[in-house]
Amino acid sequence: MTRQHLIEQIRSKQSYLCVGLDTDITKIPKHLLHEPDPVFAFNKAIIDATKDLCVSYKINTAFYEAQGLKGWQAMEKTLNYIPENIFTIADAKRGDIGNTSSQYAKAFFEALSFDSITVAPYMGEDSVKPFLEYENKWAIVLGLTSNKGAKDFELQAMMSEDAKNGAGLHEKLYEKVLRTVATWGSPDNLMFVVGATQADEFINIRKLVPDHFFLVPGIGAQGGSLQEISEKAMNTDIGILVNVSRAVIYASEKEDFAAEARVIAQQYRYEMSKYL
Amino acid sequence: MTRQHLIEQIRSKQSYLCVGLDTDITKIPKHLLHEPDPVFAFNKAIIDATKDLCVSYKINTAFYEAQGLKGWQAMEKTLNYIPENIFTIADAKRGDIGNTSSQYAKAFFEALSFDSITVAPYMGEDSVKPFLEYENKWAIVLGLTSNKGAKDFELQAMMSEDAKNGAGLHEKLYEKVLRTVATWGSPDNLMFVVGATQADEFINIRKLVPDHFFLVPGIGAQGGSLQEISEKAMNTDIGILVNVSRAVIYASEKEDFAAEARVIAQQYRYEMSKYL
Repeated sequence: MTRQHLIEQIRSKQSYLCVGLDTDITKIPKHLLHEPDPVFAFNKAIIDATKDLCVSYKINTAFYEAQGLKGWQAMEKTLNYIPENIFTIADAKRGDIGNTSSQYAKAFFEALSFDSITVAPYMGEDSVKPFLEYENKWAIVLGLTSNKGAKDFELQAMMSEDAKNGAGLHEKLYEKVLRTVATWGSPDNLMFVVGATQADEFINIRKLVPDHFFLVPGIGAQGGSLQEISEKAMNTDIGILVNVSRAVIYASEKEDFAAEARVIAQQYRYEMSKYL
Repeated sequence: MTRQHLIEQIRSKQSYLCVGLDTDITKIPKHLLHEPDPVFAFNKAIIDATKDLCVSYKINTAFYEAQGLKGWQAMEKTLNYIPENIFTIADAKRGDIGNTSSQYAKAFFEALSFDSITVAPYMGEDSVKPFLEYENKWAIVLGLTSNKGAKDFELQAMMSEDAKNGAGLHEKLYEKVLRTVATWGSPDNLMFVVGATQADEFINIRKLVPDHFFLVPGIGAQGGSLQEISEKAMNTDIGILVNVSRAVIYASEKEDFAAEARVIAQQYRYEMSKYL
């Protein structure tokens, strides 16, 4: 999907909601366990109930891999069930030396046809570049994540002789990552993960990479504020996709789970429409 | 597998060779393409030909994921075919927020029963810890990798008020990662990836983490020297597993591929026996 197409979808749906399909077989309603593929049955119902309210689905690959072969199968079926005009994200946090990253790109862009994949930056340029070589596909590189562990390395200060953009004599690791990775692609094939729990850093982050889309997890179960990040992180092309996983998909444990997921997604969409 | 068991295997086989099963279906001998599962047929022959010469097999998950469902199936069959007393590594470079890393741990330690998995450190403690919670299972965390991109972040200098071990006022990111991650586990459940192409840093690295095993890629196709890294990185418990992938598994493109792989593995084992 192109950047322009994504922006049009957001404007027409009045929503920048991404629904995270972190589907855990131990957490889905019990009646689904009688289905031949309970995870897919769950996802299908969630997609049917929310596809007019969101512009993206994010499939967290860990939850599918944890189920082995049948999990990979459920992921494939889920991806194929998502309507064409919805932006799909493989939340896979991949990244390896060049020839191996090429294989991951093949896995998620060819064997599966996701629009995008999340990528870990630690190993540097050759680990990210293979994901940027596909037309209308995206690498979504980890910048500043929503979890507690972000303080261990991402928020640590680096020496930086070449720090630009007012970052001064030193800058945080995540700032260096944003600045550096931005030079490897363009706002047309590169986004960044920026956690909603890191609201204090958002204005600074937007200065560093004014034009890129951010994938923002951490709303809902992790406690980030939709209002705050919308105010601080949007740009003139909207520039954010806000992911909500657990708060939407596990809105109810009962047979009404899809209807309840819809209610929560509607609340997010309503709030988002005010900020657009 | 326990550390003690691994060390015993190394001493008894006189080898610290890990054979990397980066099996690319486009590179295996053509006659195997008639097999029902060509990738597994290739791996099976390589394992039969090398299992007395190596102490570990490393399965690079990217090459299997690139084949979709049937790739995942080939990975499962390969893992199950590896003899019990050989240390198995899922070279998967996973890592995510805590509840997601737990799912990856489940995927590779429960759904599949690998002894270990490679883990990316960028997201910090809660992204690594779930891999350290299994008895006799290992997290192998990226320290300093063998690829060119290592210079982009891993080798960059950080400000560090708390730098210990003679690292002075600043230290490189990978040094901070080694120092910090070492406090999250022990030499009994934690190893580090250190690339053989980084020989200049090896003595320093061994000082920072004297007791941990290192998984060392970068010998063979990537150009690292076995002699140099053996001299600089071994400790009294040996402390290194040296991975060779392409140079062994693609030793010949013909029907004799397994016999030729054995010849190369024998050369590595012979050289290793001199350093032990």
